[in-house]
Amino acid sequence: MSEMIRNAAGRMVPTHVNGEPVVPFQGVGKYQPQGRKAGPPIPTAADFPADGDKRVATLKEALVRAGLRDGMTVSTHHHFRDGDLVANQVFDAAAELGVRDLRWFPSAAFPCHRPILEHMKRGVVRWIEGSLNGPLGDYASKGQMNGVAVLRSHGGRWQAIQDGEVHVDIAVIAAPTADAFGNATGDRGPSACGSLNFALADSQYADKVIVVTDNLVPFPCTPWQIQGNNVDAVVVMDQVGVPAKIISGTTQITKSPDRLLIAELTARFIRATSLYRPGFSMQAGAGGTALATAIYLKEYMREDGVTAAFMRGGSTKYLVEMLEEGLIGAILDGQTFDLEGVRSMRENPRHVATSPFTSYNYHGKGNFASIVDFVVLGATEVDVDFNANVVTHSDGRMLHGIGGWQNCLTAKVTILPIPSMRDRIPVLVDEVTTLVGPGELIDVIVTERGVAINPRRQDLIDQATAAGMPVRSIQEIKAEVEALCGGKPAKPRLTDEVIGVVKWVDGTVIDTIYRVDTDK
Amino acid sequence: MSEMIRNAAGRMVPTHVNGEPVVPFQGVGKYQPQGRKAGPPIPTAADFPADGDKRVATLKEALVRAGLRDGMTVSTHHHFRDGDLVANQVFDAAAELGVRDLRWFPSAAFPCHRPILEHMKRGVVRWIEGSLNGPLGDYASKGQMNGVAVLRSHGGRWQAIQDGEVHVDIAVIAAPTADAFGNATGDRGPSACGSLNFALADSQYADKVIVVTDNLVPFPCTPWQIQGNNVDAVVVMDQVGVPAKIISGTTQITKSPDRLLIAELTARFIRATSLYRPGFSMQAGAGGTALATAIYLKEYMREDGVTAAFMRGGSTKYLVEMLEEGLIGAILDGQTFDLEGVRSMRENPRHVATSPFTSYNYHGKGNFASIVDFVVLGATEVDVDFNANVVTHSDGRMLHGIGGWQNCLTAKVTILPIPSMRDRIPVLVDEVTTLVGPGELIDVIVTERGVAINPRRQDLIDQATAAGMPVRSIQEIKAEVEALCGGKPAKPRLTDEVIGVVKWVDGTVIDTIYRVDTDK
Repeated sequence: MSEMIRNAAGRMVPTHVNGEPVVPFQGVGKYQPQGRKAGPPIPTAADFPADGDKRVATLKEALVRAGLRDGMTVSTHHHFRDGDLVANQVFDAAAELGVRDLRWFPSAAFPCHRPILEHMKRGVVRWIEGSLNGPLGDYASKGQMNGVAVLRSHGGRWQAIQDGEVHVDIAVIAAPTADAFGNATGDRGPSACGSLNFALADSQYADKVIVVTDNLVPFPCTPWQIQGNNVDAVVVMDQVGVPAKIISGTTQITKSPDRLLIAELTARFIRATSLYRPGFSMQAGAGGTALATAIYLKEYMREDGVTAAFMRGGSTKYLVEMLEEGLIGAILDGQTFDLEGVRSMRENPRHVATSPFTSYNYHGKGNFASIVDFVVLGATEVDVDFNANVVTHSDGRMLHGIGGWQNCLTAKVTILPIPSMRDRIPVLVDEVTTLVGPGELIDVIVTERGVAINPRRQDLIDQATAAGMPVRSIQEIKAEVEALCGGKPAKPRLTDEVIGVVKWVDGTVIDTIYRVDTDK
Repeated sequence: MSEMIRNAAGRMVPTHVNGEPVVPFQGVGKYQPQGRKAGPPIPTAADFPADGDKRVATLKEALVRAGLRDGMTVSTHHHFRDGDLVANQVFDAAAELGVRDLRWFPSAAFPCHRPILEHMKRGVVRWIEGSLNGPLGDYASKGQMNGVAVLRSHGGRWQAIQDGEVHVDIAVIAAPTADAFGNATGDRGPSACGSLNFALADSQYADKVIVVTDNLVPFPCTPWQIQGNNVDAVVVMDQVGVPAKIISGTTQITKSPDRLLIAELTARFIRATSLYRPGFSMQAGAGGTALATAIYLKEYMREDGVTAAFMRGGSTKYLVEMLEEGLIGAILDGQTFDLEGVRSMRENPRHVATSPFTSYNYHGKGNFASIVDFVVLGATEVDVDFNANVVTHSDGRMLHGIGGWQNCLTAKVTILPIPSMRDRIPVLVDEVTTLVGPGELIDVIVTERGVAINPRRQDLIDQATAAGMPVRSIQEIKAEVEALCGGKPAKPRLTDEVIGVVKWVDGTVIDTIYRVDTDK
C-alpha cells in the first residue's frame, strides 16, 4: 500500500498509484510540467498495403496482428454511450486468445459494459482506468477491482496520454463510417453518433490503432475525424452500436417545478451580469436543468436582441435551433447528444466538432474552456468553501465520471444550479466527501432557495444584487436546508482502503476515494 | 568534409551532412525507421492568458518572447508563394536583435526571398534547409552557402520534423485569417491562399509557434487549419501577402503545339489503361502540360460517362469545374493555385484541404499518394533506366525544389509527360545528373515523339499497344533526339564539392549535388 501525504488542498493522497509515482495536487495553476510530449513508434508506409486497403477479417485477428499480449493497455471510446457493441467484443476476443492482466482505458464506461466485470473476475482485465459509471463504479467502490481507479476529466485523459502518463498499446475505435484506409467519421452512417473526438488522442498516440465500422465507404471518407494515416487495421462488422441507445437519454428538459425554478434563476443570473452582452459565450450540459436554463436564456436573448458568439457543449436540438435561428454564431461541439445534433454537425459548417485537445487539455497552449463566459454544471455535493464533488454520492460510493466538468471550471463564470437537497439529504455540506473541483474556481451556486455567490466574486454579488436576484450566503441556505432535513447528512461509512484517486486537470492527485464499509 | 559512400542506387553520398550523420538510400521501401516520433515540450495553460488573447504587438517582440537566439532553427511556409511578406521580416527582426547563425527551414523559398541572401552574407542566417528555387538555388549552386542544402519532398519535410531529424525551435505561420487564440485558416481573408497545411507539422512539433495575420476575426476562427492550442503568440500586421502574387503564375494551359500533343497523348494513354474506370483517381500538377492533360481527360470522361472518385493536386479552376460538374467525387487539395480553388475549398465540403501528413508522409501508416491510380508529373531529365531528375538543370545548377514529386511516385501509374528536348538540349539522357526518383517507380514517359513505357510494366505496354498508342522504347526516342540535336547533351561541369543532398521520402540520402565549376 502506498504512503499517503497531504496535498495543497489539504487532502490525503497516495504517493503511488498502481505502482507508479504520482504528483500531489499543488494548487490551481501551480504545477509546472517538465519534458516533452509522448511520441508513438515511427511507422513506415512500406509496412502497409500500397492500395490503402487495411481491412482485416475479424477484430480478433486485428488484435493478434496488433500484438495483443498480457499486461497491455487497450483503449476504447464512449461515443456510443450505453449502446456500444464493440468494447465487450474486444475483451471477449482477448479472453479467447488467453490474454490476461489487461488494463482497459476507456474514455468512459457505461452499464452496457457490465460483462467486463466478468473479465475482471477471470483476470482477463486487471483493472479499468477511466470514468466508472453505474455497476462498474459500484464494483470498484466495494474494493473488488485489482487496481486503483484513476478518475480523470476528458481533458485530463488527453493530458495523460499526451504527457506519456498513460501509454496506450492498442486503441480500438468504433466508427459509424470509415473507409478501408481507416479514415473515419461519426457524423453519418446507421450508427451515427456525431463526433469521434474522444478517440482522437488514442488515434494519435497509441502504438496500434484498429478502426471498427459497420458502414464501410469508398476512399476517401470525409470528413476524417480520425485520420487513416494513424490507423493500422480496419475491421468491418454488422453493427457497432445500438442506434436507440447511442443518443443520450439524459437530454430531457426537467419537469420538476423546483428544477425549473433553479433553471430560471440561473438564466436570470446570467442576464444580470455584465458579461451577458452581444458576442457572449456559454457552455451548458445536456442535463435537464441545464437544458431548461438554455431555454429560458433563449427567450431573454430574443427579447434583448443579444446573440452569442458561440456555445459549447454536448449539442442537442435546442442548441441546433438557436444556431439555425441565428441566436448563436457557432456550436463548438464536444459530444453530440441527439440526432438533430448529428445532422447539424454533418450539414452546418458552423457546427464544429471539437476535441478534448482544443477544448479541455490543460497541457496545451491554452484551451477553449477558459475563453467561455458562462458555464453551467452540476454537482453531487458542494461545501461551504464552494468546493464541489461530482464523482461520489453522499454515501461515498463512486458512481459518476468527471466528464468535462473539471475542465469547464476555468470559464469566466462557473455556475452550479443544484437542488439544495436530494431525497431529503442536504446537498450543501461542511466538507465534500470527494474534492473534485476547488472552490476558488466555482463562482455561483443556484438553488431553489436562493443564489449563493462565492465571496471572491464581489463583482457578481454586486451585479446580481442590483438586478434584484435572491442572493444569500451559502451558510444561510445550508442552515435552512439542515433544519428542514433534520440535520446534516450522515457521514459516509468509509474504510481507509484506497480504491480510487481523482486527478486534477494537470495530472496531479487532488483527492482519494476510499472503499465503502459495507460491514457496518 | 564528410566521407562519401556508395548508396543502394549506386550514387556517392556523404555520410554526414552539416555535421550530422545521415543514412544512405537503401532501396525503395527498404529502410526501417527506429524509435518514436518527436514530441514538443509539454506546455501548461497556466502560462497562457485565460481569455485566450495571445496577441503580441510586433513580430520582433513575439520572436523575443519565443526565446530567439543564435543557432536556432526558424521555419516558415510557402503558401503565399512569391507574394510572401513575412519570412523576410522574420530575419530582418533577427538582424535587428543581433541574432546570428540561424537555420531557415522554409517549406519552400521563392525569388521574393532574395533579401535573405543578404542575411546569409552577414551571418544572420547560416544556411537554408529547404527547397531552393531561383536565385537562392543559384547562390547555393555556386557554393556560397555556409552549409549543405538538404532537399526534401513535401512528405520528406513532414517526415524529418516528425522523426526528430529537424528540430524547429520557432515556427512563424503567416495566416490569411486568424483569431487571437491562434486558430488560423487560409481559405478566407484578403490574403486568402487556400490551405495552410504546409505549416501543419511546424505547428505541431515546433517548440514555439507564432501566427501572423492581417485579418483578425473574433474567436472562434473556423475552420482551424492551424489549431490555436499549438500557438504561443499572435501578431497582427497590415499585410501578410501580396494577393496578386499568392496565386501561382504557373496555372496557364500550355499553348505550345508540342506540349498540347504530349498532353493529348497522356490523356489518351490514361484512357487506354484498365485502371481508367468509374471511381478511378488521379493527381495532376498545375503546370501547363498537366493542366492540358486534365482538359483532354475531362472530355474523354464526359464521352465515356466515367467519373473519378477523387482527384488530388494543386487545385485550380479546372479541377473545381470538374467537381462542380459531378465528374469527380472529391478534391483532395494539397495546395491551392487560384482563387476558384480557394472559393471551392471554403464553400464545398467535398473540396478537402489535405496535409503532407495525410497525402505524402512515408513514415505514416500509409499515405494517400499510393492509393492514387494515375499521377502526371514533370522532370528536367530522364535516363534510359527511367530514373528522373527534378532539382538540377542539365548544366548542374540546382534551381528547383522537389515539391510533392517524389511522394507521388508511389501512385499505381506514374506518368511523366515531357518534351524530348528543351532549347535543343535532349531531356533523355544516359544517366541523370541528379537522381531524385528511382526508375523502378516511373512507369511511362510521354514525349511528342512517342510513349516510352518502363519494361517492368508489361501490363501497360500491352494496354497502350492494343489501343494503338505510339509506344516506342526509350532508347529509340533518345537516339532520334540525339540525332536531331547533334549528339548527347554536354556533361555539366561540376567540382567535387558537395553543396547539397537529395533526401528520399524515408529520410535517406539518394544523391548528392555538387558545386558547378564556374572557372572553366
